[in-house]
Amino acid sequence: MIKIIAKNYVKKDKKEDFLKLAKELILESRKEGGCIAYDIYESTDGKCLTFIEEWRDEEAIKSHNNSTHFTTIVPKLGEFIDGEMDVALYKKIDL
Amino acid sequence: MIKIIAKNYVKKDKKEDFLKLAKELILESRKEGGCIAYDIYESTDGKCLTFIEEWRDEEAIKSHNNSTHFTTIVPKLGEFIDGEMDVALYKKIDL
Repeated sequence: MIKIIAKNYVKKDKKEDFLKLAKELILESRKEGGCIAYDIYESTDGKCLTFIEEWRDEEAIKSHNNSTHFTTIVPKLGEFIDGEMDVALYKKIDL
Repeated sequence: MIKIIAKNYVKKDKKEDFLKLAKELILESRKEGGCIAYDIYESTDGKCLTFIEEWRDEEAIKSHNNSTHFTTIVPKLGEFIDGEMDVALYKKIDL
């Protein structure tokens, strides 16, 4: 399983625009076979909107990155943020 | 519920030292009443070790931050990383 954390510093006054599109992206992504979880969180300081996702494997992420909802919505989200989306992929460490 | 994401750029050759202490911190933290989840993840590019935690409420985080395991282990973890731990607190947005 792979977790993705994608952090966004959303431009002032663009939060509602960002969330409207993010909702569309999330609802479509959740329909994909390899999607285990896909949610959005707001930092308690109000500065960031961050996607936290869980995918079955790398193949599922590849397919997601090529989906129409991803390739059309993610560039639009980029217009509402400062800088670039900070994306990291993670695997859990067994203790 | 509050999620904490605490990202660490671990110094070269210090990964094992970091993980040994991180394991101690995680196992003690999981015993706390307000701890819902506490895990550590490695980024797929091998650069970061990131704690992903879930806490019942702000009170539980306050208590955690004052615990002996937190106040003794976290400063030691700081010796094994480049820069400072990048910590963000999050609340889930209902779609």
